Amino acid sequence: MPELFSPTPEDRFTFGLWTVGWQGRDPFGEATRPALDPVEAVERLAALGAYGVTFHDDDLIPFGASEDERDATVKRFRAALERTGLAVPMATTNLFTHPVFKDGAFTANDRDVRRFALRKTLRNIDLAVELGATVYVAWGGREGAESGAAKDVRVALDRMKEAFDLLGEYVTEQGYDLRFAIEPKPNEPRGDILLPTIGHALAFIERLERPELVGVNPETGHEQMAGLNFPHGIAQALWAGKLFHIDLNGQSGIKYDQDFRFGAGDLRQAFWLVDLLETAGYTGPRHFDFKPVRTDGFDGVWESAKNCMRNYLVLKERAAAFRADPDVQAALTASRLPELAVPTAADGLAALLADPTAYETFDADAAAARSMAFEHLDQLALEHLLGVR
Amino acid sequence: MPELFSPTPEDRFTFGLWTVGWQGRDPFGEATRPALDPVEAVERLAALGAYGVTFHDDDLIPFGASEDERDATVKRFRAALERTGLAVPMATTNLFTHPVFKDGAFTANDRDVRRFALRKTLRNIDLAVELGATVYVAWGGREGAESGAAKDVRVALDRMKEAFDLLGEYVTEQGYDLRFAIEPKPNEPRGDILLPTIGHALAFIERLERPELVGVNPETGHEQMAGLNFPHGIAQALWAGKLFHIDLNGQSGIKYDQDFRFGAGDLRQAFWLVDLLETAGYTGPRHFDFKPVRTDGFDGVWESAKNCMRNYLVLKERAAAFRADPDVQAALTASRLPELAVPTAADGLAALLADPTAYETFDADAAAARSMAFEHLDQLALEHLLGVR
Amino acid sequence: MPELFSPTPEDRFTFGLWTVGWQGRDPFGEATRPALDPVEAVERLAALGAYGVTFHDDDLIPFGASEDERDATVKRFRAALERTGLAVPMATTNLFTHPVFKDGAFTANDRDVRRFALRKTLRNIDLAVELGATVYVAWGGREGAESGAAKDVRVALDRMKEAFDLLGEYVTEQGYDLRFAIEPKPNEPRGDILLPTIGHALAFIERLERPELVGVNPETGHEQMAGLNFPHGIAQALWAGKLFHIDLNGQSGIKYDQDFRFGAGDLRQAFWLVDLLETAGYTGPRHFDFKPVRTDGFDGVWESAKNCMRNYLVLKERAAAFRADPDVQAALTASRLPELAVPTAADGLAALLADPTAYETFDADAAAARSMAFEHLDQLALEHLLGVR
Amino acid sequence: MPELFSPTPEDRFTFGLWTVGWQGRDPFGEATRPALDPVEAVERLAALGAYGVTFHDDDLIPFGASEDERDATVKRFRAALERTGLAVPMATTNLFTHPVFKDGAFTANDRDVRRFALRKTLRNIDLAVELGATVYVAWGGREGAESGAAKDVRVALDRMKEAFDLLGEYVTEQGYDLRFAIEPKPNEPRGDILLPTIGHALAFIERLERPELVGVNPETGHEQMAGLNFPHGIAQALWAGKLFHIDLNGQSGIKYDQDFRFGAGDLRQAFWLVDLLETAGYTGPRHFDFKPVRTDGFDGVWESAKNCMRNYLVLKERAAAFRADPDVQAALTASRLPELAVPTAADGLAALLADPTAYETFDADAAAARSMAFEHLDQLALEHLLGVR
Repeated sequence: MPELFSPTPEDRFTFGLWTVGWQGRDPFGEATRPALDPVEAVERLAALGAYGVTFHDDDLIPFGASEDERDATVKRFRAALERTGLAVPMATTNLFTHPVFKDGAFTANDRDVRRFALRKTLRNIDLAVELGATVYVAWGGREGAESGAAKDVRVALDRMKEAFDLLGEYVTEQGYDLRFAIEPKPNEPRGDILLPTIGHALAFIERLERPELVGVNPETGHEQMAGLNFPHGIAQALWAGKLFHIDLNGQSGIKYDQDFRFGAGDLRQAFWLVDLLETAGYTGPRHFDFKPVRTDGFDGVWESAKNCMRNYLVLKERAAAFRADPDVQAALTASRLPELAVPTAADGLAALLADPTAYETFDADAAAARSMAFEHLDQLALEHLLGVR
Repeated sequence: MPELFSPTPEDRFTFGLWTVGWQGRDPFGEATRPALDPVEAVERLAALGAYGVTFHDDDLIPFGASEDERDATVKRFRAALERTGLAVPMATTNLFTHPVFKDGAFTANDRDVRRFALRKTLRNIDLAVELGATVYVAWGGREGAESGAAKDVRVALDRMKEAFDLLGEYVTEQGYDLRFAIEPKPNEPRGDILLPTIGHALAFIERLERPELVGVNPETGHEQMAGLNFPHGIAQALWAGKLFHIDLNGQSGIKYDQDFRFGAGDLRQAFWLVDLLETAGYTGPRHFDFKPVRTDGFDGVWESAKNCMRNYLVLKERAAAFRADPDVQAALTASRLPELAVPTAADGLAALLADPTAYETFDADAAAARSMAFEHLDQLALEHLLGVR
Repeated sequence: MPELFSPTPEDRFTFGLWTVGWQGRDPFGEATRPALDPVEAVERLAALGAYGVTFHDDDLIPFGASEDERDATVKRFRAALERTGLAVPMATTNLFTHPVFKDGAFTANDRDVRRFALRKTLRNIDLAVELGATVYVAWGGREGAESGAAKDVRVALDRMKEAFDLLGEYVTEQGYDLRFAIEPKPNEPRGDILLPTIGHALAFIERLERPELVGVNPETGHEQMAGLNFPHGIAQALWAGKLFHIDLNGQSGIKYDQDFRFGAGDLRQAFWLVDLLETAGYTGPRHFDFKPVRTDGFDGVWESAKNCMRNYLVLKERAAAFRADPDVQAALTASRLPELAVPTAADGLAALLADPTAYETFDADAAAARSMAFEHLDQLALEHLLGVR
Repeated sequence: MPELFSPTPEDRFTFGLWTVGWQGRDPFGEATRPALDPVEAVERLAALGAYGVTFHDDDLIPFGASEDERDATVKRFRAALERTGLAVPMATTNLFTHPVFKDGAFTANDRDVRRFALRKTLRNIDLAVELGATVYVAWGGREGAESGAAKDVRVALDRMKEAFDLLGEYVTEQGYDLRFAIEPKPNEPRGDILLPTIGHALAFIERLERPELVGVNPETGHEQMAGLNFPHGIAQALWAGKLFHIDLNGQSGIKYDQDFRFGAGDLRQAFWLVDLLETAGYTGPRHFDFKPVRTDGFDGVWESAKNCMRNYLVLKERAAAFRADPDVQAALTASRLPELAVPTAADGLAALLADPTAYETFDADAAAARSMAFEHLDQLALEHLLGVR
């Protein structure tokens, strides 16, 4: 049934240039694959059925390139986009590879670095908008510390706020239709990174001058590196109206950042994630931020890119079947999910206080004896995932 | 030099009745210590130099006690407080021990349980205020799930918001001087708990009707169970103006909730935490929420209670010495901490954009070559902690 | 297709009395289910298609029961076994619930406790053998420490060795056909437990007087609590000839011990585990050591017991299909798995040293360019797991 | 009191060339420091008081260097050693940086790679012996997999055994006085690495042809990446007679491999580790395998190298003071540590079985009531560590 799981642009699957272009350099080893021409990436991804590509400034235009090189590169890239029909719904800034960012960018102790980081970002925002992006991601991977005195976190958050306030001012002044999405991560490459989880980023955003311009771009593996349930985090981001973008990949538990293809790693969380995205009205791109394993050649690169999409579509079908199954509906009712949607005290505080059945005559032991019937419900989900129903 | 590290009520050390009263029952074993009379707890803690005690409703008044028993218990407890001078700056509700809370309290799927949980909380709020508490802690330990379909997280957050909105309405109507402090925890006893970290709780609060009434009560071990840096989380809570209370204890990494005495577990984070609390103007209680190891008798209970305070005072002295050391001041300057406090673009966006030194003529390689000198700074901190300077 | 996945005794599925009998007491809450009569457990498990039951001494005969109670209980239990045909292939000792074991059993600092623990174990070994058990499991859950000085680990290992040497002497003298299986766990209920992983247990066994009598009983969740790959650990145990028994359940990453039903938790590791057990010639019981979630009543108990077995059988079918698929065979060859089975230097050391193609003329860059083709192979496995091939 | 903590060669502190020579390249960033000449490393380390240096073949002689380059390099290096008096007690092979090792070395699926890896190792063994090394470390960082089918672990262990058997044969035939030390690591750079912990390595060694030639080289951070207690693991290695070498550094919990200087990370485990090494008769080098933080220049490199040694010496003094303190002696007795050293059944099995006080008349409740007094003991240790006693 492969045709069932073949992607089309309507599925809104996107890939970073840096994903299929990853050369396989890791902390203990050299690159195992040659550089990939961004234009080839565009062509290949389009052929696989993707909707768009995304990029860090330096993915497209090498750090320090001349204006002429830059123009030529952009022109050639744009031509490939037009030829293939691929969109650029998101772009971002590389504020981590060059050694100048070794202590961070927006929160580097060195003020010159902070100013450079802002200018580098602003410059790429112009290009992003020019190419049609409506979301600009900010991963502050170097904003953090390995030791306690090296960073005054409250002061660093002041600087982080200053940076996002300036970025918001800029896009407002320019009249850009662009919103920002902060990508949290708990650690690596810094010992501890600021705004380590979805929650910390959501909370930070509320203190900005233009909170409406800023949301989050959670990445599967980053939340799981803190042992957190990714679908739970996404649900809170959706609840807050802040899921502006999402990075899908795979991670096997609390360890280094693995960036496996989507579907590898925690398969059951992947199922619940797709179920959530598809039922919660999320309309943004399904963006894959993964690294094809470095043991493979380009065969593995394109195989894994294809399978990120295919796995999403398989899970989408399985989640839909789960929701449509009458046995599941009955099990959800038995587990009282519909009851969770009923306000606890729609009748108001006074009525609650006056209701003896809520306290004075409440039989706690009898209520405790009601089974939640979760084992049956969870097994139904597992069987839909496995395709045995 | 023991007199240096002996606590007085001015140090504002407080303990939960459930800490020294913990009988040592764990998932695999029965209680190893007999029950402790709350009055004895009050007397002992006062003798050790504590400032106050805190309690869950059921710590003081057994679940299901009659009105008469309740009145007698409260009267006797109040007498002990008056006799010893111990304050009750905080109280909280037990919404987790009775089996009726097996699926949560404010977000239980069962609406009857939610109503009961709210009434149980409101009832204890009255007592808390009567005893002088100004902070009311809410640990939603059972608000969560073990499997994906068992809880619709967005709906559950609606219910959680409804609960805090009702609680806020109640204290406002009653004219109580009481604020709420949400205590996050990532997991245990539920597979995943809602509002798993400081960040998630801070973000949630912003969506409440009366956000000003609600802050956080972070616990050392709970953040460390997610591999997060506790002082970093506290710094963000302070930055947000939301550190209403704090639970101090010890945890050795990502594993079950250990609740060791303060000073055990991650000693270096404990040092940075005390440094932060003592320099950031936090004026609330230093509340110990720990469990004396179950291998010990009451000797270990009082020994560990004493040492929670003693260790805090030792770390306070060491942190102060660190901050006062001229070599540290020089090292902080060498690491450019003062520069982090300088706005990145106080001159505004236009000036930043017009400044060629910020981008066009910026020499990234030269800036990258500046050492941050963090190794020296961190060693100075370590040596102050160890007392070798 | 339910008949495909219905267990029979030939599948050799076994359950601990303590699994279906778990009452749901956890560190923060009281029991949510009443006690279960072991005889009912036997009858229900037999009806579900199980092969056998296992028990801790105290599961069957309450700690401190009189001889008469004991005899009556055993008689009644044996009658149920005979009636149902259920086997008792394994038994074990409870050396953790009673407070006397708060500091351990075989390695308790208190010598009286150590002697009692040994006698308690020897006594239950007699019963185990009488009931037909051929494996005796030893989980040293309390053998450990929360602090550095509380246990001299080398001395404790001497005591641990002494205990197993005595147990080996006993079964040898008695002529029992009984082998021991050590169950490793990294932590909980102790801060750190001795013999924390499969590896540590395997290594320890080699220093015993009768190493041939002792193997391991690894538990899914225990290894995963250390972030370790469970199938890898099982493979090493098999390689060492030491997989005497196995405990199957589910765990969601590094956190408290969750004991979910088999199939919940890390689904992909579960697949690889079943693939390994079914292809490696493991003939022992497939023993489920899990806890039905405490939110459920007995409906959830029997549902989860049934599904432990069902999930195993589904995974067994999927793994077999994976191995039988010609595309998988081709992919394994492309990934050079058959080549791993060829000795590296069957021709001996001298030939290797004399072979210039092995070093002097070896083209490392050319060899590095060979793709391992792992992305394709892993996707094939995922698709078999999901049933989309 | 700095002179107290200044190292001398008698302290046997050693450093890898790759530690002070680390240029700061990480998965997300380029090198921040220039290359360091190995001769400068030797001179600087000697000046700081180190005893020796260690190296991977490629640290000294770049991969692919000609014979002439090799000879010249070795000659120059040897001259520096002679000039400074620095020893080379250990050497090792780089089997991970070049892309040819992307799927492993001794267990690569590709047989050609395995043969090359063995030859590369054998070649460097000759040099190691020539320079005086008596220990040869083997870190199999690439021996592992990211997915289940990519490696047949049992077959891979056959290959691993074959490799160590060949290495053992070689040094035996050559008459070298050289032993091997396997360095375990759970993950990174592979998703799961074979022989992930001290325990797994110890167990593996027992299946070798010449187990007496092979021991372990545990690294602080590697064990802590699995959440394991490092001093406990070292104690088991010592108990097994297999601690042939040790890698000291710092790690902050379960996350990517941090390689902080010794003293950073888990300070309390560092204290217990030094206490153990200094009291257990370990006579090998105290080898630092760390990475100076990449935020720093060479100032940080030499500062951190100096402080690895200084911190060890501070902890050594503190641990000695702890052991010498009469209050500690009393506390150890109160916690019954001396009793742990008494055999449980020196009188033999029959006597144990015949002793009614061991079971029939044993009062478990009375024994359970004895306090272990661990809180007091642990606080004494903490106070010695902090220098407040």
